[in-house]
Amino acid sequence: MFPLPPPMRAALDAAAKAAQAGEVPVGAVVVRGGDVIAVAANAPRALRDPTAHAEMLAIRRAAAVLERDRLDDCDLWVTLEPCAMCAGAIAHARIVRLYYGASDAKGGAVEHGPRFFGQPTCHHRPEVYSGIGEREASDLLRGFFAARR
Amino acid sequence: MFPLPPPMRAALDAAAKAAQAGEVPVGAVVVRGGDVIAVAANAPRALRDPTAHAEMLAIRRAAAVLERDRLDDCDLWVTLEPCAMCAGAIAHARIVRLYYGASDAKGGAVEHGPRFFGQPTCHHRPEVYSGIGEREASDLLRGFFAARR
Repeated sequence: MFPLPPPMRAALDAAAKAAQAGEVPVGAVVVRGGDVIAVAANAPRALRDPTAHAEMLAIRRAAAVLERDRLDDCDLWVTLEPCAMCAGAIAHARIVRLYYGASDAKGGAVEHGPRFFGQPTCHHRPEVYSGIGEREASDLLRGFFAARR
Repeated sequence: MFPLPPPMRAALDAAAKAAQAGEVPVGAVVVRGGDVIAVAANAPRALRDPTAHAEMLAIRRAAAVLERDRLDDCDLWVTLEPCAMCAGAIAHARIVRLYYGASDAKGGAVEHGPRFFGQPTCHHRPEVYSGIGEREASDLLRGFFAARR
């Protein structure tokens, strides 16, 4: 078995750390020209911020690093299908490519629910690729919720 | 003519300040039990943050003030129909009531596009009221974009 692409490896490692911290395990990484610009783990409880999903934190950190509000030369890697909030942020940030791991039938807004990037009102559609490291991503989530039951 | 409800007045004043700062004029206010908890103006350029819509900033500030990630006893007042990102954040924050001014046929996600709160996958639906101060809200936006042409 060969390793996962490095950005997804880093996103999964961030997700595992989120689980250890008692947060729903999701991780995200912003990449620009082969360089990792930002890594983030889901942290709404620790940060007391309902918007602090991994994707949002990674996008905000990358924008801070690059000192601009458009990440139109960046890709986002995330372990779970983004929700509507995060899909909207991906469009606002003009992310070029979105790579995600597991699908999320409950909260996902890319291939489920609002299918945001397919809406006529969506002003920016990234290229979307999924299923990268999906087993590890969903195992992390399943283990987290099983332990809390 | 009677005045607008105070939270929408404060949101419109924040929107006007955003325009003066060169940002698309949208303002938002979080209210809890009659008290204004947070006021914010749209600021993605100034903050170099693609997620820095008025609603997001108001929700994040209110969560910071209340030191919790659920605003389940708070209402949000905003001058413009929220986009998908902000509608998602409103659901995550468990906002009780959403009051907005003008409709946004291009980027709105409440009565347009994904109609997020009507999706079966939406896990929290606020009560929604609109059309409060809509003329002033849309005049601010029209004036802003007309001046930039």
